[in-house]
Amino acid sequence: MREKDFITIIKQTLNSKYIGDDCAYLEDLGIVVTQDSLVEDVHFSLNYFSPYELGWKSAAVNLSDVAASGAEPKYMTISLSLPDTVDNNFVKEFYKGCKSACNSICEIVGGDITGSDKIFISVCAIGSTKHRNISSRKNAKEGYKIVIAGEHGSSDIGLKLLQKGQSLPKEIVEKHLMPVAQIDFGKIIGENVKEPYAMMDTSDGLMDALSAIATESGVMTEVDFDKIPHNKNVENFANWQESVLFGGEDYGLIAVIPEKYNYGTPIGKIKSGNGINLKIDGEIKHFTKAHVEDKIFNHFKG
Amino acid sequence: MREKDFITIIKQTLNSKYIGDDCAYLEDLGIVVTQDSLVEDVHFSLNYFSPYELGWKSAAVNLSDVAASGAEPKYMTISLSLPDTVDNNFVKEFYKGCKSACNSICEIVGGDITGSDKIFISVCAIGSTKHRNISSRKNAKEGYKIVIAGEHGSSDIGLKLLQKGQSLPKEIVEKHLMPVAQIDFGKIIGENVKEPYAMMDTSDGLMDALSAIATESGVMTEVDFDKIPHNKNVENFANWQESVLFGGEDYGLIAVIPEKYNYGTPIGKIKSGNGINLKIDGEIKHFTKAHVEDKIFNHFKG
Repeated sequence: MREKDFITIIKQTLNSKYIGDDCAYLEDLGIVVTQDSLVEDVHFSLNYFSPYELGWKSAAVNLSDVAASGAEPKYMTISLSLPDTVDNNFVKEFYKGCKSACNSICEIVGGDITGSDKIFISVCAIGSTKHRNISSRKNAKEGYKIVIAGEHGSSDIGLKLLQKGQSLPKEIVEKHLMPVAQIDFGKIIGENVKEPYAMMDTSDGLMDALSAIATESGVMTEVDFDKIPHNKNVENFANWQESVLFGGEDYGLIAVIPEKYNYGTPIGKIKSGNGINLKIDGEIKHFTKAHVEDKIFNHFKG
Repeated sequence: MREKDFITIIKQTLNSKYIGDDCAYLEDLGIVVTQDSLVEDVHFSLNYFSPYELGWKSAAVNLSDVAASGAEPKYMTISLSLPDTVDNNFVKEFYKGCKSACNSICEIVGGDITGSDKIFISVCAIGSTKHRNISSRKNAKEGYKIVIAGEHGSSDIGLKLLQKGQSLPKEIVEKHLMPVAQIDFGKIIGENVKEPYAMMDTSDGLMDALSAIATESGVMTEVDFDKIPHNKNVENFANWQESVLFGGEDYGLIAVIPEKYNYGTPIGKIKSGNGINLKIDGEIKHFTKAHVEDKIFNHFKG
């Protein structure tokens, strides 16, 4: 929760209109920009990440933020800090992974490399807003539908398996190691939705995204658990519903758009009120913002 | 020298035309972008940096890169990784320092904050190329003059004083803690020079910049030591000439421009050949690229 306090302090100190979405939308330049970091032993461990997978993921998490804005990912810079134990092959494989995740869509154009005690990766991604309608978490409106792209729950279960030294089932574990940003979905929404709309990635969990959109837009998000796409394999694991709802790093996209558009998988609707109404196991459970934060905190603590 | 090997590997892996200057110039978007990191106990120590000074310097080193491109600094994102020992006041003072260095010219619009063992700061800065002619290290031409903005040697001597626990003379020590990016000089050159030209900041030392321009342009840089501006106080310290030439982090700018322009302090000329001809103490000394790299390596080792 300390990071939340820090963000409040930063917002107060900077007093900037730009901070709040996955990306900052710089209208005068026709771009969006985002920056996200991965720290060794905080966000990943070399016990189960290969350098190639680490490069892939570092790029993918930033591509996901650009996709969430509705912009077109174009360029990336990468700062890498490496301990003495890291060799030339690590650097080569890491950058090969970054480049593969960028998949000829986005080009790596700079950054720097320095020494450190642990591996520290910070990536900045830039998207073009040309011919795109840019999202804001503030734009969800009563009556809009909530649609989703990407399966949920796999990354969280994959991480738990990896931490136990297991690397199967491959499709679950790979979802954690090499997530795929929903660039095509971001493009469809950004190019075709003409009204103001909300979009956000599920990097910190699906419920976190639903709660953030509800809070920022002053509405309630109502979703039906049974409609949330997930890999059938996740149902074999304990507390899999929690992983689908509160597990992070699946890097799906949630869009809140007018009813008339048929993009993504519909999972619910925007109602008046606040927080989230979740239909699950034949009941409707209400989650306030604080409730969601507690659940996420305890989910990751446990 | 390990970082130089890594950069060669990265260039080979990415095969990108953008990597080589302080900033990547993204012509289609009309922007330049740069990213630079500061790592605790590698680039700074909290023994002598206050949080405010650290924020200032983190912003200034990136503003300097944008200024070196000739573009107009516009926006910045900041990734901050902080150990548990850091409190709310650190975050507040750090961002106040960043904001002060940006001086209403450049706005901080995003980034992220995470946990870590040591403080890790990575800043990405974006500049607009509108009405600006963008520099390249490859653009130095025979007959062009070499001009400089900013005093040299103070930061290196300031660092040595700080490392010995001394904080005076203030004007020397402050040059290390709170360097000022040469934004006005970058603007004058970027707006007024019409021909292709070279510009680079002296973050890794004046001789490093002269050597990089010579190498990238396939020319020789000839400079007169006596013309290099420095604070008179530095002359009181041992090996001060070495600090002026090889000491880093003064964040001056070196521009290589046609003879007709009267901007900055002229310190020399571009000749055919390679490396650097340095007029010092009545002699002309020639430095090859390898010679400069050795000198910088030994200067910082000593």
